[in-house]
Amino acid sequence: MSDTSTAAPQLPIEGELCTVAIGNFRTEAGADIAETAIAFQRWGVFKGDPHGQNNVLLLEHALTGDANAANWWDAVIGPGKALDTDVWCVVCTNALGSCYGSTGPASTHPDGNAWGSRFPAISIRDQVNAEAALLETIGITRVHAVLGGSMGGARTLEWTLLHPERVGFALVLAVSARASAWQIGIQSAQISSITRDPDWHGGDYHGTGRSPDAGLAAARRIAHLTYRGELEIDERFGTSAQSGENPLGPFRADDQRFAVQSYLEHQGKKLTERFDASCYVVLTEALNRHDVGRDRGGLNKALHSITVPTMVVGVDTDILYPYHQQEHLSRNLGNLLAMSKLSSPVGHDAFLVEARQMDRILRQFITLTEHYAAEQADSPRNDC
Amino acid sequence: MSDTSTAAPQLPIEGELCTVAIGNFRTEAGADIAETAIAFQRWGVFKGDPHGQNNVLLLEHALTGDANAANWWDAVIGPGKALDTDVWCVVCTNALGSCYGSTGPASTHPDGNAWGSRFPAISIRDQVNAEAALLETIGITRVHAVLGGSMGGARTLEWTLLHPERVGFALVLAVSARASAWQIGIQSAQISSITRDPDWHGGDYHGTGRSPDAGLAAARRIAHLTYRGELEIDERFGTSAQSGENPLGPFRADDQRFAVQSYLEHQGKKLTERFDASCYVVLTEALNRHDVGRDRGGLNKALHSITVPTMVVGVDTDILYPYHQQEHLSRNLGNLLAMSKLSSPVGHDAFLVEARQMDRILRQFITLTEHYAAEQADSPRNDC
Repeated sequence: MSDTSTAAPQLPIEGELCTVAIGNFRTEAGADIAETAIAFQRWGVFKGDPHGQNNVLLLEHALTGDANAANWWDAVIGPGKALDTDVWCVVCTNALGSCYGSTGPASTHPDGNAWGSRFPAISIRDQVNAEAALLETIGITRVHAVLGGSMGGARTLEWTLLHPERVGFALVLAVSARASAWQIGIQSAQISSITRDPDWHGGDYHGTGRSPDAGLAAARRIAHLTYRGELEIDERFGTSAQSGENPLGPFRADDQRFAVQSYLEHQGKKLTERFDASCYVVLTEALNRHDVGRDRGGLNKALHSITVPTMVVGVDTDILYPYHQQEHLSRNLGNLLAMSKLSSPVGHDAFLVEARQMDRILRQFITLTEHYAAEQADSPRNDC
Repeated sequence: MSDTSTAAPQLPIEGELCTVAIGNFRTEAGADIAETAIAFQRWGVFKGDPHGQNNVLLLEHALTGDANAANWWDAVIGPGKALDTDVWCVVCTNALGSCYGSTGPASTHPDGNAWGSRFPAISIRDQVNAEAALLETIGITRVHAVLGGSMGGARTLEWTLLHPERVGFALVLAVSARASAWQIGIQSAQISSITRDPDWHGGDYHGTGRSPDAGLAAARRIAHLTYRGELEIDERFGTSAQSGENPLGPFRADDQRFAVQSYLEHQGKKLTERFDASCYVVLTEALNRHDVGRDRGGLNKALHSITVPTMVVGVDTDILYPYHQQEHLSRNLGNLLAMSKLSSPVGHDAFLVEARQMDRILRQFITLTEHYAAEQADSPRNDC
C-alpha cells in the first residue's frame, strides 16, 4: 500500500467525498475490523513533497462532524480565508467509527449486514492510526500541520505522539490530555440514554426497522448543555415559555415547555435525522478512553515527550473541556508553539462559531508555522 | 386554624417526625391538593413570642432532603454547634411534593390510591405557602430566621417575598433568583430520563409492582455531576478502572467500567432505594418554575423589594448554581446582610459537606442577626 516515492498523492476532485480501503484494521485493544474504509475530502492544490515539506493541512472533526470541513468550518476555509485554499491543500477525513463514509457500527459488515454490536470499541489512537493508513494509501506520509477541536483536538494530540515524524505542526483546540472523570461521567450518561432505549437491541437495531432515536435525542440534549455556555443559553432563553405553550400550568405536560426545552429537543431531533446512535456510542466511548498517558509512563511524561511544535487553544466558558485543561496542556507540552484563549459566552462550541476570533487564531498559527519552518530551513546554513 | 394568641406553639418531641394536616391546598397554578399534610421536626426549646421575637430557626432542605436536618446538617446543628440547640429552636419541614412525610405524588390520595399523575405541578412558592400554613397551624407566625441551600435556598428567598412579616432574617445558600435556562435544560433532561422509563406509566406506576428505578437512577447520575465539582470528581477518580473491571477492553461492556461510572451508578442506585421517582419529577419541576420575578414586575424589581435582611452564600466551583448567580443576588437584594463564598473543589454540595467553612458562615450569620436585632431594639429609644 505504502508508496514512498515522490509521486503526486492520489487526491479526489476538490470538495468531493472519496472513500479509500485500508484493509483489515486491528484496534489498540486487539479487535479486528475487516475491510476498513476511511472517507475524506480535500480543498486546494497539493504542492511539495508528499513525504517532506508540503502544503497539507489535515483537519480533524469533532464528535458528530464529518469530512466536509469546508461546511462546518466555512468561515475559515476557502480562498483568502485563514486556511487559504489558494495556498494550502486542506484535507479532512471522517473518523473511524463515524457514519459519514468511514467504517463504523452502522456500516455494512463483509457479511452484508450492519456491523452493529460486532463493531469493537475504538480509541482516539485507533482513529489516528486508521487516518495515517489512509494517508499512506493515497501517498502522503507527512503533513504541514494537523488541526482539530474537541474530539478532533484529541486526535491531533495523538498524531503528535503516534506519528511525530509525519506532523510538522499541531493546533489543539478545546480538549484535554485525557478524559476527566466528569467527562467520562457525563459521556457515560449519554451512552446509557441510548442503551436504555427499548429500540437499542444491544446495538443490533439496524435492520429492525426501528432505531433508538429517543435515546439518541436525550443523549444529545445532555451533550448540548456541555457544548454551550451557561450564560449564552440563559441570555437566549431565560425562563421564557415556548411560543404558544404554558410551562406554568396546573399540571406538568411534555407539550407545555419552556423555550429552552423546545430548543434542546430540537437539537436532539436534528441529530437523530443525521446521525446513527451506535456510531454516537462508539465515538463517545472513544472519548472516554482518551488518555495520552496510557502505556507511555503517564500523562505528563507523554506530554513532555511531544516534539511537534503545538499551539493550544481553549475557551474561557467551556463546560466540557474547562480552560484549566488547556492550561495544563500548555504547561506540560514538550514543544509549545503558542497558547490562545477564545473569550466567548458560547462555551465549548466557540471554536466552531466565533468566526472572527478563530480567523485570527488560525492566521496566527499559520504564520507561526511558516516562521518556524523558515527558521529551521535557515539554521543548517550556520551563518557564523 | 390560625391562633394569634401567645399560647406556646404545638411542637413535637425533640427530633421526632410530626405530620400536621393543613387542609385543602390550592397551588399557584390553580390546582387543589385535598387533605394536605406537612411533616416537620424540631430540636431545642422554643423561647419567646410565637408571633414576635423568638428563637426559631427554620431550615429548608434541598431536593431529596427531608425534615431530619440534624442528620443532613449534623456538623452544624446541636448543642454548642453553629446552630446551637441550647440557644435556638431549630425547625425543619419536609417540602410539599416530597416523600418524607409531607403530601406528594407518592402519598395516598383521599380515595385510597396513590396521587400519582393526579398530583399537580407545584412551585417553590407553593412549598413556602404550605410551610407557612403548617407554622400557623402549630401556632407560630414569625421566626427569627429562615435558612436553606439549593432548593432550600429558593424557598428561603420566597419566604422573604411571600411572608416578609414572618421572617426576621434569611440565609440563602447556593441558589439563584430564578432557574437559568441551563438549569431548566439539565433538570428537564432528568425528568425526561424518568418519564421515558417504560415503568413510568404516565406517573401512575404506584401499585403496579414496578417503578421507574432505571430512569430515576439515570436522572440522579446526571444531577450528581452538577452537584459535585469537576476537579473534585477528577481528583477522586480520574481515568481509573473500577476494581476488577477493564473499561479498555476490545468491546464496550456495561459491567467493565471506569471507577467514576461505578460511583455514579452507585449514587443513582442509592437514591432509588430511598426516594420516589414521581416526587423527584414534581420537585425538579418546582425548581424549573423557580422565579422570584414572576408576577412581581420582574426579577430585579422583586429582589429590590425584599426588606428582610438577607445573607447570601455561594460556592466558587458550583456547576449547578454558578457563583455569578449569588453575586447577582447580592447586587440586587433590597436588604443585603452579608455575602460569603465557600471556597471548595466540591462544587454545589459544599454547603452540605464543607463543615468547617459552613460552621464559620453560620456563626457569622447568627451573630449578624443578633447584632442587627439588638440595634433594631435599641433604635426606638432615641438616645439624642
